[in-house]
Amino acid sequence: MSTAELTATVKIIPLGGLEQIGMNMTVFEYGDSIIVVDCGMSFPSDEMLGIDMVIPDITYLQQNIEKVKGVFITHGHEDHIGALPFFLKSVNVPVYATKLTHGIIEGKLEEHGITKLVKRKIVKHGQTVTAGEFKVEFIKTNHSIGDAAAFAIYSPAGIIVHTGDFKIDYTPVFGDMADLQRFAELGKKGVLAMLCDSTNAMRPGFTPSERTVGKTFDNIFADHRDQRIIIATFASNVDRVQQIINTSVKYGRKVVVEGRSMVNIIGTATELGYINIPEGTLIDIDELRNYPPEQTTLITTGSQGEPMAALSRMAASIHRKVNIMPGDLVVFSSHPIPGNEKPVSHVINELAQKGAEVIYQDAHVSGHACQEEIKLLYSLVRPQYAVPVHGEFRHRQALAGIVEDLGIPRENIFMINSGDVLEMNAEAAGVTSQVIHGGILVDGLGVGDVGNIVLRDRQTLSQDGIIIVVLTLERYTNQLLAGPDIVSRGFVYIRESENLMEEAQQVVDDAVYDCLDNRVSDWAKIKNVIRDSLSSFLWKKMKRSPMILPIIMEVE
Amino acid sequence: MSTAELTATVKIIPLGGLEQIGMNMTVFEYGDSIIVVDCGMSFPSDEMLGIDMVIPDITYLQQNIEKVKGVFITHGHEDHIGALPFFLKSVNVPVYATKLTHGIIEGKLEEHGITKLVKRKIVKHGQTVTAGEFKVEFIKTNHSIGDAAAFAIYSPAGIIVHTGDFKIDYTPVFGDMADLQRFAELGKKGVLAMLCDSTNAMRPGFTPSERTVGKTFDNIFADHRDQRIIIATFASNVDRVQQIINTSVKYGRKVVVEGRSMVNIIGTATELGYINIPEGTLIDIDELRNYPPEQTTLITTGSQGEPMAALSRMAASIHRKVNIMPGDLVVFSSHPIPGNEKPVSHVINELAQKGAEVIYQDAHVSGHACQEEIKLLYSLVRPQYAVPVHGEFRHRQALAGIVEDLGIPRENIFMINSGDVLEMNAEAAGVTSQVIHGGILVDGLGVGDVGNIVLRDRQTLSQDGIIIVVLTLERYTNQLLAGPDIVSRGFVYIRESENLMEEAQQVVDDAVYDCLDNRVSDWAKIKNVIRDSLSSFLWKKMKRSPMILPIIMEVE
Repeated sequence: MSTAELTATVKIIPLGGLEQIGMNMTVFEYGDSIIVVDCGMSFPSDEMLGIDMVIPDITYLQQNIEKVKGVFITHGHEDHIGALPFFLKSVNVPVYATKLTHGIIEGKLEEHGITKLVKRKIVKHGQTVTAGEFKVEFIKTNHSIGDAAAFAIYSPAGIIVHTGDFKIDYTPVFGDMADLQRFAELGKKGVLAMLCDSTNAMRPGFTPSERTVGKTFDNIFADHRDQRIIIATFASNVDRVQQIINTSVKYGRKVVVEGRSMVNIIGTATELGYINIPEGTLIDIDELRNYPPEQTTLITTGSQGEPMAALSRMAASIHRKVNIMPGDLVVFSSHPIPGNEKPVSHVINELAQKGAEVIYQDAHVSGHACQEEIKLLYSLVRPQYAVPVHGEFRHRQALAGIVEDLGIPRENIFMINSGDVLEMNAEAAGVTSQVIHGGILVDGLGVGDVGNIVLRDRQTLSQDGIIIVVLTLERYTNQLLAGPDIVSRGFVYIRESENLMEEAQQVVDDAVYDCLDNRVSDWAKIKNVIRDSLSSFLWKKMKRSPMILPIIMEVE
Repeated sequence: MSTAELTATVKIIPLGGLEQIGMNMTVFEYGDSIIVVDCGMSFPSDEMLGIDMVIPDITYLQQNIEKVKGVFITHGHEDHIGALPFFLKSVNVPVYATKLTHGIIEGKLEEHGITKLVKRKIVKHGQTVTAGEFKVEFIKTNHSIGDAAAFAIYSPAGIIVHTGDFKIDYTPVFGDMADLQRFAELGKKGVLAMLCDSTNAMRPGFTPSERTVGKTFDNIFADHRDQRIIIATFASNVDRVQQIINTSVKYGRKVVVEGRSMVNIIGTATELGYINIPEGTLIDIDELRNYPPEQTTLITTGSQGEPMAALSRMAASIHRKVNIMPGDLVVFSSHPIPGNEKPVSHVINELAQKGAEVIYQDAHVSGHACQEEIKLLYSLVRPQYAVPVHGEFRHRQALAGIVEDLGIPRENIFMINSGDVLEMNAEAAGVTSQVIHGGILVDGLGVGDVGNIVLRDRQTLSQDGIIIVVLTLERYTNQLLAGPDIVSRGFVYIRESENLMEEAQQVVDDAVYDCLDNRVSDWAKIKNVIRDSLSSFLWKKMKRSPMILPIIMEVE
């Protein structure tokens, strides 16, 4: 597009969430105003050894800090709020969210001790917030966590709809169905662009209502009246927990909620009125012994096979309060998130071995829109431009296909990447530049202090361990005063490999004496000779490549 | 059961393959005769850092080496033959296998340079081998590799049927269908026990014939006449490769086979007559450029997303000969093995991003029997005792359920574990003892020299790296001659963390001077003080726990 066409454009800049799943964060910019939608974290991939989480690089926002008017959160899942404390410590702007989302964020800010520093505002569905040149309207949607919102973002260049994560649930467990009428009204007005959740874009049909899981629970409880029932699900799925409680009450069972994140979120939801637990239903885990097993239900974390979660600890017999007993019924009210299939299988097998009956199918529905819901929303909103978000490349590509079938021209569909600056107005749209973006690694309290070199070292260390060769030389004369000593960790079990280590010592001795005999005084060179000779010896002998770290000390 | 009942029993001792998947190995013992069925390896689990494979602990066989008459192999998959070279180096007995299986084993023995040392014999289906007090009959079955066999093991205590991995394919691509008549004959004679593949025991119905995949290929090729077709599948599935070649020939395409293991196995299969490739069909990968893309098919490894396999390298643009081009069709003729879902998704996304069309469903069938096939086989063989093998606990449990439904009493169904000695004859059966068993870790050329301590160290190193504190003391006086110096690897990016490392140096200095000032001369104590003070400093400051390794050198 020409520069002329590009006056008065709105810019859409995803800073995360496309190449990596999670870490959702999108910047909207018009003139001197910037707003941010969501601020999520990703779980580390397998090769990010020792990393706790990954958060978006917000250099671009730090560079334009005076423009940033606020951050708007669609819902309270970690991949939409997890990076918020880190973000706010550096870019302290108001946070706008619905009540439950706000309640969950509250806990996060407390953990980081920044509740007092951050301005935040609870927004109701239907309300609109002004932020610089933008206005942001909160629109009711449904998702696997309560109080989810889509945004209609009003800019002088046009209206942009951001769906957040959504599904359309005509019969939600709590609150209203997605506000289809409002989406239709916006469509009538004219929408410039829609950023749409692509997660389930490869799945035909409609995602079933959350309420269908309630019926499944009813059947399961009716069929298992004589057994204790343990149900694992996502801590944040308050409606799911509500349904388990409803069914438990119906069948005269007391309920225990177990697992830290579950207890926290159910606490928040109860306080804010998002869950309704009849008096006398909840009991403390220590009271379990006062009731026959068949009159109790446990709701627990661990549905993804996370090794430290409550269910996994029960399965491994390391839970302090609950032992799996023959006859227990364990229900996984979840699907394994890709990558978790193996740990989930492991827990299922452990439970079965302890005599539990395990149900791990059909007691779950997705929180994301399938193809028919996507078509419905596009048909109501009819945006000029389509921007698939939230999902792997193939999912976003599938959404692009659906949208094209609906008649949006291919050139109006933008498959963008993190860091892309997608500029648009009613006349034209296109990616015009790139900003700094990427994942910042969080390890313990360190943010960004672990980079590629450190990760590569951890990789090497994890594969074959480390061998340290240490020697002490006299300054000036370079006379060997002590060593070379060899110390290894994570390499081989020394007692089983005495001969090998003796030979390795000989190799190192030879290398060092050779250097000294030849009056090599350059330490870097001595270290290289040690490293090369030892590493080629170990490769020939063992086909292993431990890290080799020579250290020379100097004595006057 | 009483001792009286246990005269003249046959013992069944699984040495692997039950708790861990893979590593299949079962010992059969009668009097002074032992035979071994299969000798597989497992892939390391995620926490076995740096380990290449896991093989069964064969201490029991080494202790009874004079009894061992031979090893019988059901088929040529790694989880049934992978540990064979290690086993034979220690227990050199004859190997019995069908022709294709034998051909694949041959390659393994060559790699280990032991072809000349090992006696081996090709056995045809229907033939019987005598081994001590046992006779072993090879019975034709179907599986996802050619020439699979079940065994009827004749002992003075009765006949035991071991199914190996199997399915029933009425219309196999190569060779005969499973020899149902022979199974029926054995059943008529009376079978003491059957060890049966449980992998698909949770799946209802019948596993479709391998030939159905050929029809799918036909449809895919018909629909994509204008595109290059790349098909990834398991290297060892010779029939699958045969069908891809058949369809390629039908549609006038030249075929390239790519990936080391694929080239090897197809080579062996061609040589032995298990695959029939029309003259002029195969071309070298370098000849690809001489043909228009739509006249070529590539058959490749990498269907499990293995990072170094050919398809993954193509997807990542690091394959030396093949670049993925927009318009390429890539077909995954496979299902992800549990645990591989994420790497497979990763490769699919990379391929899609390069413009390839990707098909990853419906172009595969399993090699294992589903519930109806299992029922059929049990109904033909009608063993007195049932021993579910091959599969996770829940799969074996499901098989136990099927068998019970067929009328085998629950007390005659044995859910045994590795190392269990299951003794049986027509009068009684039960687990009477346990033998040494377990997984031996193979790392490079080292077998068993990496144990729990080494793995724990690798785990620590992989999470937060290592900090080495080194100092030189004068003997007797304990005077500090050099250091303490701090060297770290895999901990933090030093340049970004200068202050931290300066503070850490101060902590270590204080610890060392404190010891020396207080005339602590016990080195172990000095090391402990260094370790404790540095580790508590780092935890407070960073919430990280690197390995801390103090080294003290001594100068006279």
